[in-house]
Amino acid sequence: MCAPKIIQSAHENAARPSRRALFAAAGLAAFAAAAPPARAVPAARGVLDLTHALGPHLPTWPGSPPFTAIPVAWHALGGFGQNALAFWEHSGTHLDAPAHRVPGGATTDALAVTDLVAPLVVIDISARAERDPDAALTIDDIENWQSRHGRMPERAFVAMYSGWERHIHDAAAFLNLDANGVPHAPGIAPDAAEYLVQRCGVVGVGVDTLSLDHALSRDHGAHTAILGAGRYGVEMLANLGAAPASGATVIVGAPKHVGGTGGPCRVIALT
Amino acid sequence: MCAPKIIQSAHENAARPSRRALFAAAGLAAFAAAAPPARAVPAARGVLDLTHALGPHLPTWPGSPPFTAIPVAWHALGGFGQNALAFWEHSGTHLDAPAHRVPGGATTDALAVTDLVAPLVVIDISARAERDPDAALTIDDIENWQSRHGRMPERAFVAMYSGWERHIHDAAAFLNLDANGVPHAPGIAPDAAEYLVQRCGVVGVGVDTLSLDHALSRDHGAHTAILGAGRYGVEMLANLGAAPASGATVIVGAPKHVGGTGGPCRVIALT
Repeated sequence: MCAPKIIQSAHENAARPSRRALFAAAGLAAFAAAAPPARAVPAARGVLDLTHALGPHLPTWPGSPPFTAIPVAWHALGGFGQNALAFWEHSGTHLDAPAHRVPGGATTDALAVTDLVAPLVVIDISARAERDPDAALTIDDIENWQSRHGRMPERAFVAMYSGWERHIHDAAAFLNLDANGVPHAPGIAPDAAEYLVQRCGVVGVGVDTLSLDHALSRDHGAHTAILGAGRYGVEMLANLGAAPASGATVIVGAPKHVGGTGGPCRVIALT
Repeated sequence: MCAPKIIQSAHENAARPSRRALFAAAGLAAFAAAAPPARAVPAARGVLDLTHALGPHLPTWPGSPPFTAIPVAWHALGGFGQNALAFWEHSGTHLDAPAHRVPGGATTDALAVTDLVAPLVVIDISARAERDPDAALTIDDIENWQSRHGRMPERAFVAMYSGWERHIHDAAAFLNLDANGVPHAPGIAPDAAEYLVQRCGVVGVGVDTLSLDHALSRDHGAHTAILGAGRYGVEMLANLGAAPASGATVIVGAPKHVGGTGGPCRVIALT
């Protein structure tokens, strides 16, 4: 139900150097950053935090170390407290930049800021995921959402709500490894990810699990479809069950470190 | 020009446990996060990035190490790239939580999400700061802003624009140490910080320099006035020269790690 003309235009824009890139190259980053977004941001009354508090208690992908914070300054000694932080980028509620999956893909410092403010679409597969930890968001789910809520907004951020957050304080249940060490948790079917990118022209896709893909995926097709097309992902979103299915605006407080493949981010919905 | 009744009410609210804290204590964090903000967010058409790209090239406070990123995963080995990051919290465009200055003050995971979305007020002292690196934002500057733009909005985020960003790619000029090793850069006069908190009821205060205070300050009075009152600061903001003096909304993508005294944040203005 996404208009083909709009999608075509989005892809033409994606293929050209962005205004931001051109302005940045000319040393005029402030003006590039001020370029108008693709659509206006509607007025809002509510604020919803879609971010988990980050700490060593949070589950991480097998092999990744826990988040660490070590005090390096004290109030008694100089008047200020401060910690040294150390963690791998894909920790907590975090962004996947295209470079996470694609050699030479956009890094966190190269994302267009206008893509970080988007209409929020929440697709709820929690009933199915409660029965089946390998449940996937499918093309049918996207089309059903559109039947109920109308045409998907242009340049939306689409989030899968699977209800997996209920396991957030139990790392074993969140990772859900089987007897062979294979994780099981809901994700986005690769063809549905392709549909979101190619047919709906999303700016990004989020999930409330550790991976855009099914945890058990071997080919990581959803990552490839989304990040390979220069769009971004957000994993381990919180509170999606409290977000409306349509009508809100999401602001993805993406990290902006040079050369980053991703990183923890504050995600806020205006409802 | 801030109405005393509003300020009184803000302080009474600050003294009580927040709805968020109460709901969180009851295990209902999602509902607490959905509590309405103090004011509606108006519609917007533009998006402006107020964040510097973070990297080892950025100036840090003397004694703080540079930001580091070390690759820990490669596309050729498993299909994904990832870096391990290590840095001190107060690096780049970053948040100061109350705990940075005040033992027992709110940490990054305890900030109310509704305080991270606020009317943006920009007070421009760049003409004075160009002549005098020790220029301060004063009560007169706040009152002059109100004479021009009307009563300051309730629960605003007030940013000092000094133009100091012009030195961002020259750490020596940005730090501006004198022969005695004392840094010189613009900041907020302590009584002006007190005025912003007590008379104007701001949720937070930002600067485009490394410190809320004058760099040469010994007593850190602006930090004390702002963080001591449970409000937050943001330092090293970018692109404030491109932001309107009034009428925009700022979203502070504050870090949310457990026990944090601050950290890098993505700051976005909707204009």
